[in-house]
Amino acid sequence: MTLYVNLAELLGSRIENGFYRPGDRLPSVRALSVEHGVSLSTVQQAYRVLEDNGLAAPKPKSGYFVSVSRAAPALPAVGRPVQRPVDISQWDQVLDLIRVAPLEAVTQLGRGMPDVTSPTLKPLMRALSQLSRHQDMPGLYYDNIYGVRRLREQIARLMLDSGCNLTANDLIVTNGCHEALSASVRAICSPGDIVAVDSPSFFGAMQTLKGVGMKALEIPTDPLTGISLEALELALEQWPIKVIQLTPNCNNPLGYVMPEARKRALLTLAQRFDVAIIEDDVYGDLAYNYPRPRTIKSFDEDGRVLLCSSFSKTLAPGLRIGWVAPGRYLEQVLHMKYIGTGSTAPQPQLAIADFIEGGHYEPHVRRMRTQYQRSRDQMIDWVMRYFPEGTRASRPQGGFMLWVELAEGFDTLRLNRALLGKGVQIAVGSIFSASGKYRNCMRMNFAAKPSREIENAVRIVGETIALLNAQTD
Amino acid sequence: MTLYVNLAELLGSRIENGFYRPGDRLPSVRALSVEHGVSLSTVQQAYRVLEDNGLAAPKPKSGYFVSVSRAAPALPAVGRPVQRPVDISQWDQVLDLIRVAPLEAVTQLGRGMPDVTSPTLKPLMRALSQLSRHQDMPGLYYDNIYGVRRLREQIARLMLDSGCNLTANDLIVTNGCHEALSASVRAICSPGDIVAVDSPSFFGAMQTLKGVGMKALEIPTDPLTGISLEALELALEQWPIKVIQLTPNCNNPLGYVMPEARKRALLTLAQRFDVAIIEDDVYGDLAYNYPRPRTIKSFDEDGRVLLCSSFSKTLAPGLRIGWVAPGRYLEQVLHMKYIGTGSTAPQPQLAIADFIEGGHYEPHVRRMRTQYQRSRDQMIDWVMRYFPEGTRASRPQGGFMLWVELAEGFDTLRLNRALLGKGVQIAVGSIFSASGKYRNCMRMNFAAKPSREIENAVRIVGETIALLNAQTD
Repeated sequence: MTLYVNLAELLGSRIENGFYRPGDRLPSVRALSVEHGVSLSTVQQAYRVLEDNGLAAPKPKSGYFVSVSRAAPALPAVGRPVQRPVDISQWDQVLDLIRVAPLEAVTQLGRGMPDVTSPTLKPLMRALSQLSRHQDMPGLYYDNIYGVRRLREQIARLMLDSGCNLTANDLIVTNGCHEALSASVRAICSPGDIVAVDSPSFFGAMQTLKGVGMKALEIPTDPLTGISLEALELALEQWPIKVIQLTPNCNNPLGYVMPEARKRALLTLAQRFDVAIIEDDVYGDLAYNYPRPRTIKSFDEDGRVLLCSSFSKTLAPGLRIGWVAPGRYLEQVLHMKYIGTGSTAPQPQLAIADFIEGGHYEPHVRRMRTQYQRSRDQMIDWVMRYFPEGTRASRPQGGFMLWVELAEGFDTLRLNRALLGKGVQIAVGSIFSASGKYRNCMRMNFAAKPSREIENAVRIVGETIALLNAQTD
Repeated sequence: MTLYVNLAELLGSRIENGFYRPGDRLPSVRALSVEHGVSLSTVQQAYRVLEDNGLAAPKPKSGYFVSVSRAAPALPAVGRPVQRPVDISQWDQVLDLIRVAPLEAVTQLGRGMPDVTSPTLKPLMRALSQLSRHQDMPGLYYDNIYGVRRLREQIARLMLDSGCNLTANDLIVTNGCHEALSASVRAICSPGDIVAVDSPSFFGAMQTLKGVGMKALEIPTDPLTGISLEALELALEQWPIKVIQLTPNCNNPLGYVMPEARKRALLTLAQRFDVAIIEDDVYGDLAYNYPRPRTIKSFDEDGRVLLCSSFSKTLAPGLRIGWVAPGRYLEQVLHMKYIGTGSTAPQPQLAIADFIEGGHYEPHVRRMRTQYQRSRDQMIDWVMRYFPEGTRASRPQGGFMLWVELAEGFDTLRLNRALLGKGVQIAVGSIFSASGKYRNCMRMNFAAKPSREIENAVRIVGETIALLNAQTD
C-alpha cells in the first residue's frame, strides 16, 4: 500500500478512536512529514483522503481540523467469547431469517440485501435480457467447470484494486460467496477440525462450518480494528487450529476495516503456525475510503489464503455469482465445487462480464459507496433518536450493516417475535455467535435510501424495545 | 400404475428380450384378456402403447405383429463388480470431461447435453428475456431458501405423471440435480458410510459420494431391467449399507427403465433393511414410452426415498435448476442446501414457472422424446456400421445416451487420447465405476438431430478404434 494511504489510515483510526476530538486541530503537514519521514505531498494526499471520508476539513490558512461530526453512540463492547472450540448451534434462528420470501409486506432490516434500484445497474439488466433473446446463447449449455473465462479475466482485473495480482486461471466462479466459502472449508477441513473465527461472525460462514462437523473457536474482536491478534496467538498455541476464517474488510456484522499492519501480522501468525486463512471479502469493494482496502490475500506469498467474494453485495444477490481464489488449494476447491453443484449458470456470468467490460462496474460501485455512507449516518441518527439511551452501535467503514448492542440481559429473539405482526424484521445477534451469545445485539441493514418507511420501521423497533423493557421492569 | 401400462411393459420387455422375434404374431387380444384377467379394452390400450413405441404394428384382420425392426447389436454384458465397498477414484478422468468449455470445435459425444435448439423452447427464452427487462424483477433478490413457490407448485403438478402426490412444501429447488444429489448425500451420510450404487453409475453422483468420504458398493446391473435385486439383498445382509443410490428410469448410462415390479421390490428391500434410497429421475420425463414410468418415490410410504431431478435434460442444463423431494429428510437436506450455496437464483426459476404455466412444457418434452427415440435408432445404426464387429450396445428406453461395449482389453482412455486431435470427445467407461472398471466401454450422446457432422464423428471414433486394435495386434 502506498505511504499516503497508510498515513490516512493511521490518522483516521485516531479520529475514529477519539484520540482527536471533533473540532480539534490536526497536526500540521510539516509536523507529520517530519514525524513519519514522508514528503509534504504525501501528507497532503493523506489529508485529502480524510477529507473525502468526511473525517477532516481544511480551514484556509489554519490547517486541518477534525470534522464536527454528528454525535455517535458508544461502540459495542469487545466480546469475550468462550476460549474453547464449540459446536455451532443457532440453525433454527438462521432458518427463521432466510425462509422469508422477498418483497413481502415486511421491512427486512435483517437480510444482507444491497440496494438494487440504482440506475447504474441498468446496463446489467440490458445484458441479461439481450443474452436470452437468442436461443443459441451459451447460457443454455454446461459451462466449463472453472466458470466463464471472460468473467474470470474481469474479476482478476478488478482484484488489482485490492492489491491482488492474479490471473483468470487462479479463479473459480461459484454460486455466490456462499459456495466459495463452503467449497473452501470442505477442501481443507475434516469433521472435528477447529476453525478460529472473528466474533461476532457471519452466520452463513459459520453454518457452513457446522455442515462439515467442525468446531468454531471464537476470537475476541475489536469493533474498530478487528480480530484480536493477541487472543488469536494464544489460541493458536493452545489448540490445533486448521483454518482462520474472517472478514477483515467492511466486516459483517461490525463494519470495521482491519488496519493493514494487523492484516500483515495476522498472515505472519498463520505462517508461523502453518494454518490456512479463509478471507471473506464480499463487502471489500464497498469500503467508504478510496482506494479500497487491501486484502490479506494481497500479502500472501505461499498460497495459504483462500479469498472468497461475490457480486451479491456490489450488484445483486439473486444473480448468485461469486468466486474463490484458492491459492495452493485450487484443485481441492475445484473438486468440492464440482461435487456440490457441478458448473455454474453461464447466463449471469456472461451478463456481468458484459457489464464490467462496458466500464459500468466502477461508476456503479462508486455511487453505492457514497449512498451507503450517507445512509449509515442517517441510520445511526435514527437509532440514537428512537432507541433507548445507552444503546451502542458500530461505526461501519464500508458496506451497509449496523451492529447494535442493547442493554445487557435484553433478548433480541423476544424482540423479533414481538416485531412479527408489525412488518419489521431484524437479524438477531445470537446467530453471529457459534454458541448463541450476543443475544442483546442485532444487525440492521441500511442499504436502501433513507425513507419515511425505513424511519418508521426503526421507530417501531425502538418502541418495541422500550415496551419489552417496561414489561421486564 | 394402470393395468394396461403394466401389460404393455410386460409385452414390451418380452419383445426387447427376444422372446417374440421381429415379424412374429403377438397373442390375440382375447387370449391376453383371458390370460391376465383384464378387459378387452385394457389389452387394446396396451397394444396402442406398443404401437406408439414402435414395438408392434397391427395388420388389418390379423392382429398385432412384432415390428420388423432394424437389427440391433448384442447387449452389453452384466457387470460383475467387486463385491466389497471401495473408495471412489477416477476424479482426474471426470475432470478431463468437464473442464472442456462448450461450443468449441469438438463434437462432444461425451457430455450429458440435451438438444436445446428445438423451437418449442422459444417461450422459455422469451420469459428469461422479459424478466430481466424490469429492474424491480425479483430475480435480483435473495429468494426464500426453499425456492420460488410458483415453480415448486408447477413441479409438484408435473410429478403427478410419475405417480407422486406431493405439494410445493415437499420440494426444495436446487442448483441442478447435482446439488439435489449432493445435499441428499450430505444430509444422510457420514464419512466412511457405505452406499450401494447401480453399476455402471452416473459419475457425478459417485464423485459426490467421494466428496463426503463415503465408500461405494457397486451392485451388478442388468442392461434391460436394472440393478440386481438378488445381489443387492446379499449386499444388504453382508454390509451396513446406509443408502441405495440409483437411476431407475432411463438410466444413465444404460438407458433401461426398471420394471415397476422391481421398483416395488427394491423399496420393500429398503424397508426391510431400513436404508434410504436416493433416486435420480433426471431423465424420467424423457422415457420413450407414454405414459412416463413411475418413480420408486411414488410407492414410498414412510418418506425414505429422496427423489432428485432437474430441468437440465428436459429444458437446458445452463439454467442450473433442479429439485429434491427429500421425504422425511426435508429439514436436513434444506440445511445442507443452505450450507452449500444459500438460496437458488430466482430469475431462471421464474422463467421456467412461466414456461410451464403457459402450457409449453408438455409439448416440448413430447417432441424431444420422439426426436431422441429416432436419433437413438440412427446412432445404433451408425455404431453397427462404423464400429468393429462384436461391438455391444445398450437399448435405451429413454434419454439420449448410448452405452457401448468394445472387445475385452480395449482401453477407451487410450481411445479418447487418440481422438484428441480429431475433434471428437467420448465419455470413457471407467468414470462410471467407483473403481475404474468398464475401461472397454464408453458413453455416447445422441441428443442432437442426426447430421453429417455427427455421422462423421461416429465414423472417426470407429476408425480410431480399428487403428488402435491394429496397433495392439
